[in-house]
Amino acid sequence: MNGSEPFGAFHPGRRVLLGPGPSEVPPRVLQAMAAPVVGHLDPAFLRLMTELQAMLRQVFKTQNQTTFAVSGTGMAGMEACLANLLEPGDKLLVGVNGVFGGRMVDMAERMGVEVTTIERPWGEAFDPDEVAKAIERVRPKAVSLVHAETSTGAWQPAEDLGRICRERDALLILDTVTSLGGLPVEVDAWGVDACYSGTQKCLSCPPGLAPVTFGPRAQEVIAKRKKKCQSWYLDVTMLGSYWGQERAYHHTAPISMNFALHEALRVVLEEGLEARQARHLRNHRALAAGLEAMGLHYSAAEGRRLPTLNAVRIPDGVDDAAVRKMLLVDFGIEIGGGLGAFRGKVWRIGLMGEGSNPNSVLLVLGALEQALAKQGVRTSPGAGIVAANAVYASK
Amino acid sequence: MNGSEPFGAFHPGRRVLLGPGPSEVPPRVLQAMAAPVVGHLDPAFLRLMTELQAMLRQVFKTQNQTTFAVSGTGMAGMEACLANLLEPGDKLLVGVNGVFGGRMVDMAERMGVEVTTIERPWGEAFDPDEVAKAIERVRPKAVSLVHAETSTGAWQPAEDLGRICRERDALLILDTVTSLGGLPVEVDAWGVDACYSGTQKCLSCPPGLAPVTFGPRAQEVIAKRKKKCQSWYLDVTMLGSYWGQERAYHHTAPISMNFALHEALRVVLEEGLEARQARHLRNHRALAAGLEAMGLHYSAAEGRRLPTLNAVRIPDGVDDAAVRKMLLVDFGIEIGGGLGAFRGKVWRIGLMGEGSNPNSVLLVLGALEQALAKQGVRTSPGAGIVAANAVYASK
Repeated sequence: MNGSEPFGAFHPGRRVLLGPGPSEVPPRVLQAMAAPVVGHLDPAFLRLMTELQAMLRQVFKTQNQTTFAVSGTGMAGMEACLANLLEPGDKLLVGVNGVFGGRMVDMAERMGVEVTTIERPWGEAFDPDEVAKAIERVRPKAVSLVHAETSTGAWQPAEDLGRICRERDALLILDTVTSLGGLPVEVDAWGVDACYSGTQKCLSCPPGLAPVTFGPRAQEVIAKRKKKCQSWYLDVTMLGSYWGQERAYHHTAPISMNFALHEALRVVLEEGLEARQARHLRNHRALAAGLEAMGLHYSAAEGRRLPTLNAVRIPDGVDDAAVRKMLLVDFGIEIGGGLGAFRGKVWRIGLMGEGSNPNSVLLVLGALEQALAKQGVRTSPGAGIVAANAVYASK
Repeated sequence: MNGSEPFGAFHPGRRVLLGPGPSEVPPRVLQAMAAPVVGHLDPAFLRLMTELQAMLRQVFKTQNQTTFAVSGTGMAGMEACLANLLEPGDKLLVGVNGVFGGRMVDMAERMGVEVTTIERPWGEAFDPDEVAKAIERVRPKAVSLVHAETSTGAWQPAEDLGRICRERDALLILDTVTSLGGLPVEVDAWGVDACYSGTQKCLSCPPGLAPVTFGPRAQEVIAKRKKKCQSWYLDVTMLGSYWGQERAYHHTAPISMNFALHEALRVVLEEGLEARQARHLRNHRALAAGLEAMGLHYSAAEGRRLPTLNAVRIPDGVDDAAVRKMLLVDFGIEIGGGLGAFRGKVWRIGLMGEGSNPNSVLLVLGALEQALAKQGVRTSPGAGIVAANAVYASK
């Protein structure tokens, strides 16, 4: 290899993925992904696409025809929603209460969109009334909000947002990256016009695709665009022709990723969305009880805490990196550090999809107890486990 | 599942992939892809990224620091190159002699770039002199050409293009989607400023990533941009911070796809680039001899035929779809139909990466003989196989 030694095969070692994603992937999904590749216009693959769309509609709770997986990770889904619905000069209202709202602002500004923000301290959620008032003040074409803020662990109530937007003639774009498959997401019932997610969170599929869905009002806006979508790769009209009946070649779909998502969605629907949500909630409650018993505090406001992503403040004087390194090296556990304003200030413990289970909860509490002790933080020995087990013992 | 039957597991059946890509994937690559997922900031994954970049540099034959895999398929690589090097109002010269040149025009126009084209009939390549003259006439910021036109099977000589562009103060963007890993690609020696490819052709990895490389002149242009790149997802400066020493989180990388590409590049470099190119050439010669002995004619001009993608004219009166269906159903063989102006007029037989082997050649010739006979086309029985074997028998 040009005189240098060739690289060896990659053997990453086993991890317990309890960070902000990717989450644990069921072995049967990994196995489905490794099936021999077929062509992107093969009748068998086209059938898989149709099934995948039908399953995505069930997971998004929508009848939207335009429901498919964008060939990129979650952020490609965000960009697809913004780039297709907005044109240069359009007005967008963005709720910013964490990193991902901020990203929407950056993305939309790159598109020549006129962005107005409403802001909330990190860890808080927006009140539907303040969204309504901001729409009346700004008169935007669209409103963009994050259902589950992965950077803060805050859960945005979304039931009324669609109605509020619709009554004020604005489109609603909702980020469900860290909620889809783990928390209730009701695209049609809530009146969400465009919604995107990622595969590597509560769907427990490897990262690589971004499920998206566009409703009738979004479709109408797209059909009436003055200019083509700025992105060829993410043009929903062309993508819809490939995923739709025309089967018009657009790009070579990531075949293996679609194999994986098909199997991951089968796993989700076999469990059932409601059972899955209940499981996420129960394991979150056990973890929260344990963390609090160990003296750790959530960064998200009471009543707004995501079951899927538990962000807790790092106690004063504790070495963030040393704790995360110890968890990784001694236990193979990945938890997430803080992003942006929360860098060095919070840990993010994900209980998503396959990873939301009692084993994860007990393991991370036990390992954290060791790591905190090493940092000189006094916790009542075993208190975390005891508190978590008490939740599991309750009905 | 909402009253309807759940979908079953997906079992595509075995295919022989001899279309325009995806190509055959070695089992060890599929296996590497199915390793348990790790986090996108896991030290083990960061090490894999570094190795992957080093191997991509060897394959691209470049020292470019900014060499990595974009988290999308080949067309995301095209869009990344155009969107990062060009700003609204910039001039781009595009060589159009097939579908993919046409796509560059569409993409660049969406970006507000002022596009001028030079054109050649499909199947032909551009003469370096005409490129030089066009640059002098148009004075573009960049020139974009397709090294291997997947829609026509034409091979664009590229050795002199970088020098020609540099002497005229233009950047050279080269599409190597259907050449990288199968034909000589010499990014540094040829003076290519930005180059993109896909994983699913001559690298024999599943589709899902776009290898890219940006040279010093491209880097300088990117550093001096007046406006941010229109695409957040494809912003090379931010992507470079993730792939570079900062390891700054940008998006959740498609972990499993990167596992696959790492292993696929190991396979490529174990064989050696030159041995691999010689193999592609030899199997192409055998296939070409066989096809011609059966009375089929290449659509690309003599001396310009891609070893990796053999596009032949469909004989008059032959039912395109019926032949391809018979190959697929009776033999599991996928070959490609024509795109754009070549729709219904050519078949595209890919001999790429793992799929470039004598078995593929003999199989597709034998199966085509059956299919043509069924269509009433008289070929001399066995002539294709005899001609191919004669090539294999020669030194």
